[in-house]
Amino acid sequence: MGSGEMRPADASGFQESGAEMKHSVSKKTCIPRRNEMVSIIQQVVGRVSRTEEVPFDQSLGYVCAEDVLAVNTLPNTPVSRFDGIAVRYADFEGGPPDTSAWTEGGDYEYANTGIALPDGYDTVIAIEDVIIGETGIRICELPEYQGEMVNPVGEHMRQGETLIPAGEMIVPAHIGLFAAGGVNRVRVYSRPRIGIIPTGDELIPPGCPLPLGKNVESNGYMIAAYMTEWGAQPVNYPIARDEPGELAQAVRLALDENDALVIIAGSSLGTKDFTLDILGEMGEVIVTELAHGPGRKSSLSILEGKAVLGVAGPPLGAQITCDLYLAPFVSALRGLPHRQMPKLDVISDDAYLPRRMDFCERAHIYHAEDGYHIRSAFAPKTTRAQMQALSQGNYYRPAGSSCEAGGRTTVELLCPIEMIPSRDKLLEVLGGVIEPYE
Amino acid sequence: MGSGEMRPADASGFQESGAEMKHSVSKKTCIPRRNEMVSIIQQVVGRVSRTEEVPFDQSLGYVCAEDVLAVNTLPNTPVSRFDGIAVRYADFEGGPPDTSAWTEGGDYEYANTGIALPDGYDTVIAIEDVIIGETGIRICELPEYQGEMVNPVGEHMRQGETLIPAGEMIVPAHIGLFAAGGVNRVRVYSRPRIGIIPTGDELIPPGCPLPLGKNVESNGYMIAAYMTEWGAQPVNYPIARDEPGELAQAVRLALDENDALVIIAGSSLGTKDFTLDILGEMGEVIVTELAHGPGRKSSLSILEGKAVLGVAGPPLGAQITCDLYLAPFVSALRGLPHRQMPKLDVISDDAYLPRRMDFCERAHIYHAEDGYHIRSAFAPKTTRAQMQALSQGNYYRPAGSSCEAGGRTTVELLCPIEMIPSRDKLLEVLGGVIEPYE
Repeated sequence: MGSGEMRPADASGFQESGAEMKHSVSKKTCIPRRNEMVSIIQQVVGRVSRTEEVPFDQSLGYVCAEDVLAVNTLPNTPVSRFDGIAVRYADFEGGPPDTSAWTEGGDYEYANTGIALPDGYDTVIAIEDVIIGETGIRICELPEYQGEMVNPVGEHMRQGETLIPAGEMIVPAHIGLFAAGGVNRVRVYSRPRIGIIPTGDELIPPGCPLPLGKNVESNGYMIAAYMTEWGAQPVNYPIARDEPGELAQAVRLALDENDALVIIAGSSLGTKDFTLDILGEMGEVIVTELAHGPGRKSSLSILEGKAVLGVAGPPLGAQITCDLYLAPFVSALRGLPHRQMPKLDVISDDAYLPRRMDFCERAHIYHAEDGYHIRSAFAPKTTRAQMQALSQGNYYRPAGSSCEAGGRTTVELLCPIEMIPSRDKLLEVLGGVIEPYE
Repeated sequence: MGSGEMRPADASGFQESGAEMKHSVSKKTCIPRRNEMVSIIQQVVGRVSRTEEVPFDQSLGYVCAEDVLAVNTLPNTPVSRFDGIAVRYADFEGGPPDTSAWTEGGDYEYANTGIALPDGYDTVIAIEDVIIGETGIRICELPEYQGEMVNPVGEHMRQGETLIPAGEMIVPAHIGLFAAGGVNRVRVYSRPRIGIIPTGDELIPPGCPLPLGKNVESNGYMIAAYMTEWGAQPVNYPIARDEPGELAQAVRLALDENDALVIIAGSSLGTKDFTLDILGEMGEVIVTELAHGPGRKSSLSILEGKAVLGVAGPPLGAQITCDLYLAPFVSALRGLPHRQMPKLDVISDDAYLPRRMDFCERAHIYHAEDGYHIRSAFAPKTTRAQMQALSQGNYYRPAGSSCEAGGRTTVELLCPIEMIPSRDKLLEVLGGVIEPYE
């Protein structure tokens, strides 16, 4: 992709090893609706091809770059499947043997689950089916075939067997498989390194005193946290001032040092929004804005073969852009399928009137006797913290759609369903957070 | 809890700061079914009370130990809500003004979203509703009240407001709130430190050559990975040999150094399973075994006020014990609600006959035109890797229940639903992993 000239690789090595961009996307800029935007991301953003080797017990959450093959065969000698006694099946072939004088170590041996069968024995009888006397034993359930209750060699794992194929994400069970399989190191795709560039003269970094008329740069930290959660490696850059040369330089630097970028800047009509002009000069702007709010002024570009997601600034819009697009952006860079948010059927306490454009409403969710309910988190005078408080849902509404108060609809769930509070709990927390403003 | 004598605190400090054990549990040992076991865990295992302070941008996933309050008020001066022009509402109070000679900097100023309103202005008109001429401007939509399209001081955040209450887990949006709110450090509950003690003479650590008749200790690494995923801090201990004194000493050491323990040892009838005896001598065994398979020989004890989960050894049972009980064990230590696995309605390809006891079947899931299907992952000759391959579900069946081939039932989903393969893909991977054994 990327219409910009390829720049020479620098010492960081990221220039060479960026994402494999796919080539099927239409190069026409467009203003997509939600599903179209996700599909554009999946078309133009490819897996980052850099790989590395990690110790098996530190490979959790990485995506395998190669099939991982077992070194060990397990069990490597027949083992007992249960706690019991090991016997020779030959003793039972002629019918029930006289066991009244059987001795441990002679005619039978104790056998424990997962433990190698003692030499010379081939079959196991569960301990529940044996009565051990002072002399001899009594067997209540006779074995029916040779090898009964024995795991043969290789039943659990065989040398050369694929423990996980390339392209799959490593979960805890795989870590156990690697240990058992004698796999000490695993070749994985490196976590995509994504630069985050905040922009705006009105912003100051967190931790500084806040002069009048200034705001704190907070989106970059939220976006970094999302990236961490989704398996990317965020790299926060300093705030770029509203000056075209400075922004271009910041983008160029971050582009060299990362696999992809997020620029926190709207693509709007304001006097100081020249971000798209700069991105267009350095590469190709594919999406100039979205056909829904909030976060409408988000964008997508390809610069020197690397994807750049523009996230519009107001925090709620930025958060929804993360939910909707940063998630598939990171998944695409990792070569993983896009993980949908779970859906929940709800009763709406508020009326939602038709809008001219698709809109993603933020909603509080609570549970009641008749099911789950939502109430708008957009109420006037709601602070950011109140909007965030407790459970949240995204209620994505196509243009023209509506929902009456008391009507049923479906929302996307942003938290585990167990976190959803009761109505009383929700109102207590919302009321308790802050007195209504003014 | 804990009938054992309290031992003096050692230098590690964990002795003093262990989990707050709750006191409502019945002290009678029991053999619980699934829901009963979860409820026992929730009754006897309490939140680990140790806290620490972390930088706000490294607090993702921790549970807050105190309400976090905003230091900043935002905006700290009125700001524009849209890109547009700032005007004085007084100019509009007598009806539409003549704007044909209005000048920038005199009668109006440009106003950008989120930027402080220029001094002397109080209202904003969206840029879309203004036509800027060579001389003067034309306003298409007049403002209706003073302060229209302006965010007043404190609308987004107010000093002293609760950004997140104590006891809630920090998600990316909170990291943004902390940055905006001027919160540099956050007091959180420390991640529960959980010691993992594998036991068994037949085991050798991973990475060593595998002598005949030996097996690799793999469960401890899988369990550590689960703990990491669920927000605990695992501490792997060396394999304890099957010798009562050695095991007791290993437990004593790990107990001093951790908030809770996992012992990988069954509570079965085998000759070498003395684990419960030792735990009983050192404290109180609450659950001696479970009323379901696999993983039936798992246990729960309280030693010196700290919870000890016994995980029976065979890997599949160990994995199911993690899914079912290590998850709520860790949640309880973190003071979080137990996160249920999502449920999925499926068609069963295999017949499941009634069993005398509850049983948790491991199932492959695939999608087809008529919906999601399961097929048993317990087929004879299935290796561990084949059982793990691709998507998985747990099909928990109460004693006596059955499902015919082609019948409908419900499973618990262990992977994101997007990871579920088509039938062809599943069969390809299962077939490709390994030739059938023998």
